[in-house]
Amino acid sequence: MTDVLEQLRKAVGDPFVLSGSQVHADYTHDEAMTARPVTPVAVVRPASTAEVADILRTASQMRVPVVARGSGTGLSGGCLPVSDGIVIAFDRMRTIKEIDPENQVAVVEPGVTLEDLDRALAPRGLVYPVSPGEVSASLGGNVATNAGGMRAVRYGVTRQHVLGLEVVLADGTVMRTGGKFVKSSSGYDLTQLLVGSEGTLAVTTEITLKVHPRLIESVTILAPFATLAEVARAVPPIVNSGVDPSILEYIDVLAMGGITASAGLDLGIPEEIKAAALAYLVVVLDGMHADRLEEDVAALGTLLSTIGALDVFVLPSGAGAALISARERAFFVSKAAGADDIVDAVLPRAGIPAYLARVADLADRYGALITGCGHVGDGNVHLSVFLPDVERRHALLDEIYETAIAAGGAVSGEHGIGTEKVSYFLDTADAVNLDLMRSIKRVFDPLGILGPGRLLGTGWATS
Amino acid sequence: MTDVLEQLRKAVGDPFVLSGSQVHADYTHDEAMTARPVTPVAVVRPASTAEVADILRTASQMRVPVVARGSGTGLSGGCLPVSDGIVIAFDRMRTIKEIDPENQVAVVEPGVTLEDLDRALAPRGLVYPVSPGEVSASLGGNVATNAGGMRAVRYGVTRQHVLGLEVVLADGTVMRTGGKFVKSSSGYDLTQLLVGSEGTLAVTTEITLKVHPRLIESVTILAPFATLAEVARAVPPIVNSGVDPSILEYIDVLAMGGITASAGLDLGIPEEIKAAALAYLVVVLDGMHADRLEEDVAALGTLLSTIGALDVFVLPSGAGAALISARERAFFVSKAAGADDIVDAVLPRAGIPAYLARVADLADRYGALITGCGHVGDGNVHLSVFLPDVERRHALLDEIYETAIAAGGAVSGEHGIGTEKVSYFLDTADAVNLDLMRSIKRVFDPLGILGPGRLLGTGWATS
Repeated sequence: MTDVLEQLRKAVGDPFVLSGSQVHADYTHDEAMTARPVTPVAVVRPASTAEVADILRTASQMRVPVVARGSGTGLSGGCLPVSDGIVIAFDRMRTIKEIDPENQVAVVEPGVTLEDLDRALAPRGLVYPVSPGEVSASLGGNVATNAGGMRAVRYGVTRQHVLGLEVVLADGTVMRTGGKFVKSSSGYDLTQLLVGSEGTLAVTTEITLKVHPRLIESVTILAPFATLAEVARAVPPIVNSGVDPSILEYIDVLAMGGITASAGLDLGIPEEIKAAALAYLVVVLDGMHADRLEEDVAALGTLLSTIGALDVFVLPSGAGAALISARERAFFVSKAAGADDIVDAVLPRAGIPAYLARVADLADRYGALITGCGHVGDGNVHLSVFLPDVERRHALLDEIYETAIAAGGAVSGEHGIGTEKVSYFLDTADAVNLDLMRSIKRVFDPLGILGPGRLLGTGWATS
Repeated sequence: MTDVLEQLRKAVGDPFVLSGSQVHADYTHDEAMTARPVTPVAVVRPASTAEVADILRTASQMRVPVVARGSGTGLSGGCLPVSDGIVIAFDRMRTIKEIDPENQVAVVEPGVTLEDLDRALAPRGLVYPVSPGEVSASLGGNVATNAGGMRAVRYGVTRQHVLGLEVVLADGTVMRTGGKFVKSSSGYDLTQLLVGSEGTLAVTTEITLKVHPRLIESVTILAPFATLAEVARAVPPIVNSGVDPSILEYIDVLAMGGITASAGLDLGIPEEIKAAALAYLVVVLDGMHADRLEEDVAALGTLLSTIGALDVFVLPSGAGAALISARERAFFVSKAAGADDIVDAVLPRAGIPAYLARVADLADRYGALITGCGHVGDGNVHLSVFLPDVERRHALLDEIYETAIAAGGAVSGEHGIGTEKVSYFLDTADAVNLDLMRSIKRVFDPLGILGPGRLLGTGWATS
């Protein structure tokens, strides 16, 4: 390994290769609840694509596993180091290379955070609308996991916003895909293949993103419902009504208690409603015209009343923003409360009521506490599972994932598979799909050095 | 080949295997201007996925090339038969399997046409908004080419609407990808890899499509401009204004003359404006509220005046619909007028003025007539090229494509590469991209029986 470190130091300069005690604990984990920290052989901090290419050439020659890392805010262990490998940390590649308002495009390095990008876009009246909740997340990480978030119901996820990539292949070759154009029918869409591949096919060094005009008006509506099933059943009519909400979240009574308490937030909901409500729907409408929003809010209010809402609260803008930002921290509230794992299965949105009912049954049967909130508008509910016993929890999660798959869903809506959900993914994946994915992996990474063990598991040959 | 025919007859039944003189001329070509018809060994007309699987098992065992065909309305030779191969025609697989309003999803067989689907969606207040212009086009063909069309500026192209696929692999294995969910981070996105792969990776047998609430109000605005450059420069400000047009087309004076004459359409534009106008912008705004549209039309009118429109005409709804439908037939008008080829390069939309200026120069230099109209809102202009001499035309097209690529674009925005644009694609494709595409092709189709010669060219081994 001395050789490897020497080569890496040549590639990026001595101060940017950290090994042994220089490896700060932050680099040894992400935010996954279930993963144990792993110290890699080295953390390498390149400043350019050329340096990343050098690192990968070295890694290929010496067959050293490589894990790419953005801000480390992932929830599935996607950037968890491997003990005999290196971590490429992108905290020095944080340049916004270009904001091009005419083409509605931003070009960024992978270490740029959502916060960085928003700060640069806002003064130009533009927005990158994908908001996975953690503004310190990096765009490189977002591309790796195909991050989603609350605004996906209107704007789609990362995938729909990546127009082009520059990546470094396992052998150090630099490749560009796509570009500043919004569509193409010119060969297989390698950009789309790379988005969501969790660092197992290539290492991203530049991202061309589609951005949108920034909407200036926003209204947050909170509707309590008597039951989980009712709140979930309210979703299709809202989506079909054409009001086009930018956020459509459900929060169950436990999650609501946690996030409002943690944020010190009083939404002014009368006690008798609170007592009767088991779940809340949060709807945000955005637009350019205050009068139209007002009209839409009124129409939505009427609709909500007819589909079972106990009441409809149009929140003052400060409280609305505070609720959304509290909701964004729901994961950390769960974590602080001692949640043992988080489930982000996705399913056809109309299947959510039956899914949640089944989850409640399973929670009872296993003696687990399961609270939920999430993107009910796009069928992606996040469940916080409190059940310390590892084996029982695995069995419970197996049943939850099987329920989601049986309802026509998938294991992860937006967090990715990483290292932590591999067993659930492999247990439920279609064998033909999985074979093809592994064959594609071999094409890109014949030596199997990129993100070993994550997404596709171990124990199948890559060379 | 007798053996092959016998096997195929076993698979689908005698009446549905056409060979020799039974092969109607329609099956020997698509709408590409440059392709010569080719008669295949047989046309096979399966009625089910199981039959398609049987056909592919036979084709694999006997190493018979296979070309899939929808309605044959493609413009790049994507379904052009090969003389030693078979055509799988999907005209018997035309069932709309499900319309699911709660999940906003339609599930269709590949032979279902856009017209069929619209007829089924309209009464339910839903729409599949991808409109490549030819309503008799099949969804299977649309998936193969990643078809676009006029509404892509607002809704995106086919790619953004395909949530899941059932396909048959080269060896006859049936595979499902995706599902009725709108997002997923659960492995490589095989659905997105298959969309736009032009039948070279697998044969599609079922498509799960995202549909939208149908907007009921629509206004068409026509703005003449003095120059091509001005009309193209008007696009970014319109896109950035937030009015979110569903159609944003440019039509040059020659194309406008052709399509209005052919449709017998009088738009009521005063002669002096007609005389001064070299190009037209057509903008369609759609919505649910007539009053909002009116407001938006007024704002757009003001904007158009400040950015150089000679005048702004809000067309009566009949004339607006007639103009859009005439525009949809522009390709056929060009063809009837004797156009020799059509270019659908795509580029960053802000690059269109410089691109069109360069195209005009090239037309002059080569003594060609080039007329244009197209999706200027998404950087995808269609050029009809009149230049009968094949060699000179090839040289001219080479220069046009190189111009588009140099401006950061791609060879095809929505028509696909097929057989007819392979040389242009291969000449301009990035070598690393192309290598990876060919390796992926080998993974899916090791014997090279699917769509040989199209997209990736010939002369590279697949087995």
